[in-house]
Amino acid sequence: MTGLRIIDIHDQADERLVDFRDLSDADRRPDTGRGVVIAEGVPVVERMLASRFRPHAVLGVAARLERLAPALDRLGADAPACYRVTADLMARVVGFHLNRGVLAAARRPPTPDAGELLDGARTVVVLEGVNDHENLGAIFRNAAGLGADAVLFGPRCSDPLYRRAVRVSMGHVLLVPFARLGVDGSGWPVDALDTLRARGFRTVALTPGGDTRLQHAADGERVAFLVGAEGPGLTAKTLDAADARAAIPMARGTDSLNVATAAALALYERARG
Amino acid sequence: MTGLRIIDIHDQADERLVDFRDLSDADRRPDTGRGVVIAEGVPVVERMLASRFRPHAVLGVAARLERLAPALDRLGADAPACYRVTADLMARVVGFHLNRGVLAAARRPPTPDAGELLDGARTVVVLEGVNDHENLGAIFRNAAGLGADAVLFGPRCSDPLYRRAVRVSMGHVLLVPFARLGVDGSGWPVDALDTLRARGFRTVALTPGGDTRLQHAADGERVAFLVGAEGPGLTAKTLDAADARAAIPMARGTDSLNVATAAALALYERARG
Repeated sequence: MTGLRIIDIHDQADERLVDFRDLSDADRRPDTGRGVVIAEGVPVVERMLASRFRPHAVLGVAARLERLAPALDRLGADAPACYRVTADLMARVVGFHLNRGVLAAARRPPTPDAGELLDGARTVVVLEGVNDHENLGAIFRNAAGLGADAVLFGPRCSDPLYRRAVRVSMGHVLLVPFARLGVDGSGWPVDALDTLRARGFRTVALTPGGDTRLQHAADGERVAFLVGAEGPGLTAKTLDAADARAAIPMARGTDSLNVATAAALALYERARG
Repeated sequence: MTGLRIIDIHDQADERLVDFRDLSDADRRPDTGRGVVIAEGVPVVERMLASRFRPHAVLGVAARLERLAPALDRLGADAPACYRVTADLMARVVGFHLNRGVLAAARRPPTPDAGELLDGARTVVVLEGVNDHENLGAIFRNAAGLGADAVLFGPRCSDPLYRRAVRVSMGHVLLVPFARLGVDGSGWPVDALDTLRARGFRTVALTPGGDTRLQHAADGERVAFLVGAEGPGLTAKTLDAADARAAIPMARGTDSLNVATAAALALYERARG
């Protein structure tokens, strides 16, 4: 295991553990203050190691570090420092008992340009006002599983790299490309949707009040599905600006579906053909 | 408002509030110990009032009770007692600040016989080992939205009437009929699936390793979709006993989808035709 640097740590106050400290607090606020992205558990850390997010540090108990050794070893000299601790010390550093037993921390890389992502994409999901971290995570998990090429952020969305979003996404937020669509919300929605149209995307708003059924709106060479926050949904301006407004056939007397589920159905509709 | 019985309560220790006491603890263990089902928030309480679960007590702040007045009033003499309290007293009774501002408590009615439910059903979801309350709740929400007629419980599932499941389902667990399939798990899966077949149901197991694509397995006069817990999925015995094993087309390199999302896709596939 040439690349692996295992460092045993016995002191809770060791400065090298700074990025893993008091995560229970960090989970209540965006991690942006620290500028790090945290992956939790063997499968998610493995996804981080395979992603554009290159961790600089891994903290874990011996058994979990062993399971990660092959993936870490493949990185050779680029492998992060691996801090080996007891479960008890880990709990004291992190602030709670973390039964996933391993964490990795990476710096945030620059967010790619939306244009670049769109060039190679056939199916994208565009978010407006999706401000719930669990929904964001679930959207990325569904995007990965059902073959979306990218997720694009309109205004008023939460941070997809927040710890809870990374966890709920099962790490797929690290792998599915994403970008901001429009810089400060000023060109939203008209200019942003024009950007998509200029690249051949049909913009399809998902809305319970849509006048087209989803199965008639999901085909085409390039499609962008627009979804809004659970509850309010997409704004009237965005509904107006889209090329089509598609409804999922719903049983009578029910609310709309969860936003991540609606996105999953749209992606499935496109993938099933 | 003929039926409405509003009772102002000022004493935290009032015995009439027993079913609402210390819910923060109750959310960590099944509510079965008390034999009550709790609905939280105006929309969910409204669903409870329209369901077979008839609440005997409602606890809320004035503004929320007012919003519920029309639904309560329709019940006439069957309306539950409505205990009106301040937000502060409510927080002290419940054990935490509940920003939904209103709760209802109902006794658990007897669980209906599976056979009875199946007679009128065209599409059902059958669960094996689904032991996560959020997933259970999401399955019921999706079942309601996408038109499943019933949810049937195989072995090793959690309680769908647990408070968190009711909440995540948006109250649809109170409206979508459910029943146990088999009494103690001894006839699972062979006898249980025979029960379904005897009533004309095709049993379709959802599994990433399925040899049929979902869109080829979802039609037919009567279909029962079988889903297993996230992670392990359905047991080998259940996969063997099913009439078909259907896979959702997945992008390469991803896990299976969340179990509630998989169920949603199956129900959507059936509803879209």
